Amino acid sequence: MKKIAILGSTGSIGTSALDVVRNFPELYEVSFLTANSRTDDLEKQIKEFKPGAVVIKDKLAAEVFKSNTDFKGIILAGEEGLIEATKNFDYDILLSSLVGFAGLEPTIEAIKRGKRIALANKETLVAAGEIVVDLADKYNSEIIPVDSEHSAIFQCLVGEKTEDISKIILTASGGPFLNTAYENLKNVTVKEALNHPNWSMGAKITIDSASMMNKGLEVIEAHWLFRMGKDKIDVVVHPQSIVHSMIEFIDGSIKAQLSLPDMKLPIQYALSYPERLNKSYTDTNFSSIKNLTFFEPDFKKFECLKLAFDVMEQGGAAPCILNAANEIAVEKFLEGKINFLQIPDVIKSALYRIENYSDPELESIIECDRLTRELLKKEMN
Amino acid sequence: MKKIAILGSTGSIGTSALDVVRNFPELYEVSFLTANSRTDDLEKQIKEFKPGAVVIKDKLAAEVFKSNTDFKGIILAGEEGLIEATKNFDYDILLSSLVGFAGLEPTIEAIKRGKRIALANKETLVAAGEIVVDLADKYNSEIIPVDSEHSAIFQCLVGEKTEDISKIILTASGGPFLNTAYENLKNVTVKEALNHPNWSMGAKITIDSASMMNKGLEVIEAHWLFRMGKDKIDVVVHPQSIVHSMIEFIDGSIKAQLSLPDMKLPIQYALSYPERLNKSYTDTNFSSIKNLTFFEPDFKKFECLKLAFDVMEQGGAAPCILNAANEIAVEKFLEGKINFLQIPDVIKSALYRIENYSDPELESIIECDRLTRELLKKEMN
Repeated sequence: MKKIAILGSTGSIGTSALDVVRNFPELYEVSFLTANSRTDDLEKQIKEFKPGAVVIKDKLAAEVFKSNTDFKGIILAGEEGLIEATKNFDYDILLSSLVGFAGLEPTIEAIKRGKRIALANKETLVAAGEIVVDLADKYNSEIIPVDSEHSAIFQCLVGEKTEDISKIILTASGGPFLNTAYENLKNVTVKEALNHPNWSMGAKITIDSASMMNKGLEVIEAHWLFRMGKDKIDVVVHPQSIVHSMIEFIDGSIKAQLSLPDMKLPIQYALSYPERLNKSYTDTNFSSIKNLTFFEPDFKKFECLKLAFDVMEQGGAAPCILNAANEIAVEKFLEGKINFLQIPDVIKSALYRIENYSDPELESIIECDRLTRELLKKEMN
Repeated sequence: MKKIAILGSTGSIGTSALDVVRNFPELYEVSFLTANSRTDDLEKQIKEFKPGAVVIKDKLAAEVFKSNTDFKGIILAGEEGLIEATKNFDYDILLSSLVGFAGLEPTIEAIKRGKRIALANKETLVAAGEIVVDLADKYNSEIIPVDSEHSAIFQCLVGEKTEDISKIILTASGGPFLNTAYENLKNVTVKEALNHPNWSMGAKITIDSASMMNKGLEVIEAHWLFRMGKDKIDVVVHPQSIVHSMIEFIDGSIKAQLSLPDMKLPIQYALSYPERLNKSYTDTNFSSIKNLTFFEPDFKKFECLKLAFDVMEQGGAAPCILNAANEIAVEKFLEGKINFLQIPDVIKSALYRIENYSDPELESIIECDRLTRELLKKEMN
């Protein structure tokens, strides 16, 4: 019986994870759940999964919740609540599925306790990859990726040696604007950008998919997660999202992991690894799929992807700056304050002005993140 | 340093294997080579690879060779020579790449010595699958498949558990007649049948690919090699021959092994497993591949494939009868004595008339094979 803690249980990944937990009451129980402000959803989850504690990040929502609920467990609030829970509560696996940089510190607390991390929060590795993987090594914490692409790589690596990899090939759906001309990207609406062809996800990651920044973040994530050379990561566009990613080995053999898109599969695998559980959420029939296509990404049209490769090359805190600037830019795009093509512009302006650190400590990473947000928020309000 | 013995060194698989050996003089040396009658080619291989012995299956060719060669090693002849060599000579890995039923007995000799078998001779497992895999278990002999499909399955299984497999999906190119109408198959020429779109192989296997009997034999091979339930093996047509085969696991995850078609990759892997060697024969670029297609096989048009599923279901010596009848039918087709659509007819007539054994010993298998050939040869001459 494994105790699962879920950071962000009312989000898309969190609810899918609870679907998995629901299927295996003999294997998994819930330690604690956290929500940002969706306390109605949280209340329902509490009734069904009976966690020992909950954390509500939004302090006002936490106050309202406290005075209305008949939940008898511990109720914490704010970012400090997230850290206290990951640092002190009893759990075996932390599903890290907060959105953005907010996931970093609680995840580090779990790593320091040698817990297994089911990692859906890619920003953790983007902003502080080296620090995080070094800590995981030091504290014997297993990081099992939940992103479908990294789960694919992870699954293809089972039984193989990392040093036998010649190349990681991340597949990208290309998002809703794959076939939109560059000059029309300027005028796309928020609604269009939120309309992902294959995956149903939260707003931030869906916009990142539309700009292909999501793939850029994944490139950096793969670089750290698999300690893979920067020149050994390729991106190929594959609009059907059936091949979730591939590894090419030194003998030319390529392994791929495939399925119809459903996040419950990589979530379940991250919980059950090294076992596979007898529950499938997809029914992948190749005769009905018929066609898998592949082509090179357009780095001019999807400048965010190029920027991600650039900051990976620069190293230091540059990926952290890119990540923070991207979070702000996406927020502003969703608020209608900038157009879609201004997202990379905002990021470039931050990278140009915030000083990079060559070998940053966690404190410098947090400072870089703070400075970037401060700078951009000030000038964009 | 591993000593490699190659049954059928002048054939397509044999010469590819020697290409691999040539690339790794520090890892592999040649123990003995065997040819059927191509002694000129064998002479060249002797000069380059310096085996300790050779076997020439055609006795007349062996006599002529003996009187002309300055090779100082042992020269054996005939089927008994093949058996003596595999039974007594010094080697670590036997590459079993004879064509047809002839490969069975020498391969069994190597298994009984606990040698690794790099198995390219699928007829060994088709005709006597249960006997062969039981012997391999008993004598701790590893059977590593060389067929690209089974190598793919084998590679996808590394680090996974056989009991977690929900389905093996063998891919089939569909051969040269994939888009030929059924009614036109009657009139296809030998030359057309020998013109495989993706693979350059020997005549027997190329005709088997054209009739899809090759895939049928592979289904039975997979059934034994992976001890996979008969209802857990699917065939999907994939004309590009890039995805060499796939495994679906109980959690819905599918693993595939891919590359441009080149037999040197699975051959090298069968020699080097569990290592991968740093030499690639393929440069698989997804952006230039662009398109992978899949569809269901047409069992009516490719009746041989259906017959193979049928005999697997029947079990006993039925696959052996099918295999022997198919060898004769292919021979007669190549000689112009029957048309392409008569290949399954010949097989059905044998299955109808030769008595099946339910739990055959090796002797009964050999007898069934002999009887089938005798019957068909008599009436087709």
